[in-house]
Amino acid sequence: MSNNAEQFASDNYSGICPEALEYMLQANLGSAPAYGNDEWTQKAADYFRELFEIDCEVFFTFNGTAANSLSLAALCQSYHSVICHETAHIETDECGAPEFASNGSKLLLAPGENGKLTAQSIESIVTKRTDIHFPKPKVISITQSTELGTVYTIEELWQIKEIAQKYQLKVHMDGARFANAVAAMNKSPAEITWKSGVDVLCFCGTKNGMALGEAIIFFNRKLAEDFDYRCKQAGQLASKMRFISAPWLGLLETGAWLKNARHANQCAEYLENQLLQIDGVEIMFPREANAVFVKLPEQVIQNLKDKHWQFYTFIGVGGVRFMCSWNTTKARMDELIKDVQEAIA
Amino acid sequence: MSNNAEQFASDNYSGICPEALEYMLQANLGSAPAYGNDEWTQKAADYFRELFEIDCEVFFTFNGTAANSLSLAALCQSYHSVICHETAHIETDECGAPEFASNGSKLLLAPGENGKLTAQSIESIVTKRTDIHFPKPKVISITQSTELGTVYTIEELWQIKEIAQKYQLKVHMDGARFANAVAAMNKSPAEITWKSGVDVLCFCGTKNGMALGEAIIFFNRKLAEDFDYRCKQAGQLASKMRFISAPWLGLLETGAWLKNARHANQCAEYLENQLLQIDGVEIMFPREANAVFVKLPEQVIQNLKDKHWQFYTFIGVGGVRFMCSWNTTKARMDELIKDVQEAIA
Amino acid sequence: MSNNAEQFASDNYSGICPEALEYMLQANLGSAPAYGNDEWTQKAADYFRELFEIDCEVFFTFNGTAANSLSLAALCQSYHSVICHETAHIETDECGAPEFASNGSKLLLAPGENGKLTAQSIESIVTKRTDIHFPKPKVISITQSTELGTVYTIEELWQIKEIAQKYQLKVHMDGARFANAVAAMNKSPAEITWKSGVDVLCFCGTKNGMALGEAIIFFNRKLAEDFDYRCKQAGQLASKMRFISAPWLGLLETGAWLKNARHANQCAEYLENQLLQIDGVEIMFPREANAVFVKLPEQVIQNLKDKHWQFYTFIGVGGVRFMCSWNTTKARMDELIKDVQEAIA
Amino acid sequence: MSNNAEQFASDNYSGICPEALEYMLQANLGSAPAYGNDEWTQKAADYFRELFEIDCEVFFTFNGTAANSLSLAALCQSYHSVICHETAHIETDECGAPEFASNGSKLLLAPGENGKLTAQSIESIVTKRTDIHFPKPKVISITQSTELGTVYTIEELWQIKEIAQKYQLKVHMDGARFANAVAAMNKSPAEITWKSGVDVLCFCGTKNGMALGEAIIFFNRKLAEDFDYRCKQAGQLASKMRFISAPWLGLLETGAWLKNARHANQCAEYLENQLLQIDGVEIMFPREANAVFVKLPEQVIQNLKDKHWQFYTFIGVGGVRFMCSWNTTKARMDELIKDVQEAIA
Repeated sequence: MSNNAEQFASDNYSGICPEALEYMLQANLGSAPAYGNDEWTQKAADYFRELFEIDCEVFFTFNGTAANSLSLAALCQSYHSVICHETAHIETDECGAPEFASNGSKLLLAPGENGKLTAQSIESIVTKRTDIHFPKPKVISITQSTELGTVYTIEELWQIKEIAQKYQLKVHMDGARFANAVAAMNKSPAEITWKSGVDVLCFCGTKNGMALGEAIIFFNRKLAEDFDYRCKQAGQLASKMRFISAPWLGLLETGAWLKNARHANQCAEYLENQLLQIDGVEIMFPREANAVFVKLPEQVIQNLKDKHWQFYTFIGVGGVRFMCSWNTTKARMDELIKDVQEAIA
Repeated sequence: MSNNAEQFASDNYSGICPEALEYMLQANLGSAPAYGNDEWTQKAADYFRELFEIDCEVFFTFNGTAANSLSLAALCQSYHSVICHETAHIETDECGAPEFASNGSKLLLAPGENGKLTAQSIESIVTKRTDIHFPKPKVISITQSTELGTVYTIEELWQIKEIAQKYQLKVHMDGARFANAVAAMNKSPAEITWKSGVDVLCFCGTKNGMALGEAIIFFNRKLAEDFDYRCKQAGQLASKMRFISAPWLGLLETGAWLKNARHANQCAEYLENQLLQIDGVEIMFPREANAVFVKLPEQVIQNLKDKHWQFYTFIGVGGVRFMCSWNTTKARMDELIKDVQEAIA
Repeated sequence: MSNNAEQFASDNYSGICPEALEYMLQANLGSAPAYGNDEWTQKAADYFRELFEIDCEVFFTFNGTAANSLSLAALCQSYHSVICHETAHIETDECGAPEFASNGSKLLLAPGENGKLTAQSIESIVTKRTDIHFPKPKVISITQSTELGTVYTIEELWQIKEIAQKYQLKVHMDGARFANAVAAMNKSPAEITWKSGVDVLCFCGTKNGMALGEAIIFFNRKLAEDFDYRCKQAGQLASKMRFISAPWLGLLETGAWLKNARHANQCAEYLENQLLQIDGVEIMFPREANAVFVKLPEQVIQNLKDKHWQFYTFIGVGGVRFMCSWNTTKARMDELIKDVQEAIA
Repeated sequence: MSNNAEQFASDNYSGICPEALEYMLQANLGSAPAYGNDEWTQKAADYFRELFEIDCEVFFTFNGTAANSLSLAALCQSYHSVICHETAHIETDECGAPEFASNGSKLLLAPGENGKLTAQSIESIVTKRTDIHFPKPKVISITQSTELGTVYTIEELWQIKEIAQKYQLKVHMDGARFANAVAAMNKSPAEITWKSGVDVLCFCGTKNGMALGEAIIFFNRKLAEDFDYRCKQAGQLASKMRFISAPWLGLLETGAWLKNARHANQCAEYLENQLLQIDGVEIMFPREANAVFVKLPEQVIQNLKDKHWQFYTFIGVGGVRFMCSWNTTKARMDELIKDVQEAIA
């Protein structure tokens, strides 16, 4: 059976990177205790504590939807609410998973340029309703890097931290592309998380080069009380946990997590630069991580599809998203660029 | 880092079998569409339809807790109940996952020899309460092979089918060790599932030799309506689905699923035979699949633990469970047997 | 202890009307079987069947939040969604009750003039997302009369019915002020419910003159399967049910339900007419039932509050809602009008 | 329409007692702010604080199922469990309400003579499982007086308090017949609740003489955080709250709560004494509150039913429950006794 050549639809079209695979194969030698009571899991968790320079609590789930929804559920009760951007993945692409995991918490949607919440948009939601007939805001959820390929600056994170403290809100970070944010910002993981007020981070391994697996990192340890039970009950405790934790260790120990992210970011930068040299191509949002959002004439989009290019489109606005990954190649980007050029010409 | 030598604690201590691994590696060449829109997933699902000789609906989840709880939730509403054996995994080892996934369905526990429900025990529960103040029974859940290492015979399955029809109950089969049951019974998968009244089967790949992955097979297709949404919402839709479906295909196409199960069953048979030749060892339940339950004197149990043997114990009754797997070796069994002999002597 | 004079804050500030009270007192003579197995409950349910000219299923709950959320939960699963107007009570004033009762169903908000959904706004939501990553629409919820005091015409209901059929959606009607709609439309209850495609109606007794109590009326009987269990599990089965059903019978048998609604509507009409004769008062939405929404200068609003008038305000827009009820008096309206006049002058 | 003469089926067959009714009628004069912002509600809550001699948090719900399930949900998360007696109402007669309200908390059933948990039976459950695969015990729920008509002594309560503290469990008291327990024990409400380690009490007004209404009393105020939101979301916030709180005030201020309970207890005592003088009648459990459990020959039971007596039976054991209430009369008891005598003779 044949898989495809690299595509630009999503970074989850890519396979397992060599470093993750190697550790997975090593973990497969012999038997190991189940449910995370193995050495790989212990070591991976420890590595996260080292990477984030804090004694955090670390849990592994199978995917990002589970990581986000279970961690949000740990931060609020069913009659509370979560403030997020109107383009947040938890709102638009998780099929109501946060509402399900929390048994009813409402997501309150805020606008904001370039996919980013602002202190002002958050405050406006918090103060809009304070009566018992509407769910009480308890959590701010931000995505870093955002669903629109942008990155919250340290200053923006601090403003959110301030507003969170003012209204006693917890801060959840959806790190579906957290590695890309770190690569983009030239800041330490600690600086852009707990030092910036983040209580819990969902760090995605899948898009970073693993077969599957997410790390949930509670910087605020009190919020992690009995979280292992929560994971188990929600069907998120892997019996052969080592096949999630060993690849994580592979990414971390070898530095592949950052190397992969840097590569994807650089590819996106190259792709953007090349595309912008073509007349008729317009950038939609600042390209700050591994995604390029551009406007293309409708017939160009159709033409690319006819040539079997895969990417996300935004109906009506003529926009497309090209997502780069750890295995994106210059050759494929050049093919894509050439096809765009030809379609436009 | 070192993993252990083969153990007898659980079949989920074992790693990935060669066939599953080979397919996973093949699936890793190149990119592939996410969320199951890849060829591996299509082909694995088709293979299940062939294997079960019926046009069933097939879904994949990450683990068995999720498979059981989501499929049960599809068969009943929160105010309904599920009849299961008092030793059923869904009751004793899933941390309330069925109650969580269904938003409150109650498990009604029935006794029964050797871990098996009987038509009589089911009927007694169904007829005990029929008023609105107690959840209405809607589902019978049976485990094949059972948590006590026994196997429902075709006759027993048929009696349960009859009682299910009499009271309009759905039948759910927890197939954590379904392959072992097939290997033990010398019946086709179709015969012991939908031909015996099973509406939905959770077929476990993890214990059968995969890194992780469960197939949920709806023989009753109507019950599968929108089940894909249910999986997605519950955090059980893998983005890189091929890494679950390709290993499944590996197990199925190569016949490894049955080979692995037969091997485990045969190991259990050997182990049982050898242990029973030792004075002071008593069998607890008929050994019919890949588990051996024996009573041992307390000091023997302690002695084995001191020698770092891993197995499950049943406090107070002097019972232990030795579980065999696809990678159990005669050499390790002989070591274990020798240590039991020495400890008793 | 003193209660207040009649107010304009909400129709739930009013007490029990004489007819409801009289039946409640009658029901209090002697003992009666619990949980609805009494004659009052039987007779009230029968009366609804007569009133709606159809063999519907009738259930009673304590309040409207419960009636709405439980009936919506009966129409959809957690991974489905409910389309409603952005001003719908289920969205803005039930603290996430629908999400809680359904274990996560999302409300999809549509705009629409005067608080009314249109076929177009519904279709636009239904067709916007059809992939598995977003909850599948299953229900349209409309409020009759609406939260903005307007009333869906028969033609509008029929357009919604058509779109519901086109996309296989169920139709839920929040009848918090259903009686007022009937009074306003000069149509039979049957015509504006099941003959117009409504599957289930939540008919509010509290605002119509009872102490408390809501009737849930399933015109589509299949949707009511085991709904009695759902009510019980959700804490909505009254043990002394007669004290809900007898007052309902009182409202229905005596015709008070319609008399009360007509009175409230007429009061609103009078109030609107008088207010509009005052310079500086502007109507916000067509006054079609028992609510008057007007814009008033901020200092006028403050002035009224200083005089202890109670009403709802809409921050920033200078709008206020005056709600009339079964016990609104001309004298109190005239006092209010006089105070508005004075404040403006 | 006719209600029945007083019966012995349940204390919820009785109507509204005069004191509760009088206050309800007073509360019906004029209008009042909704959702509990009225004087009656404030005063009733204050009265509870006085009665219990502590600054507790007081909430009102419509019925006992809601009160129990919502307060339990406030004490534990979905992956926690509640220890209760196997005859507890929350297990046997609430249709899975606790599991629903908590989104999955499991009830762990303990045996115990006369319907009472013991420190030993609790400890045995707490220590049985301490792994992540089984819900973690968080709450002990006791019913006072019990479902079998018995009463926990102060000493028994203190033993439970000790075990709760030892294992950091919260204590929930189902006070469906709390007034009867107070009447039976000659102890103050404070002594048998928070001074005995009870964190939250569900105090039932319905069985004590109201039309409906339950008070949830959090002695441990921290556990009540945002509980008002929980009630609202669960459809348990009455808009015309005064019709629950005013009758409560009527019961409390007039002393009717205790008078009613004493009367019911004394009736039960009389009934027991008379019945025991009949040959062939055997007591089943110590009669300590307002219920009499006796064994009667099957044909006697049938005979009573033929004469339209209403009571609960326990299939197979020949047991019946006669429940006395605030409106039980000596005349009706004498009729019953006479019919039992005749049937036996």
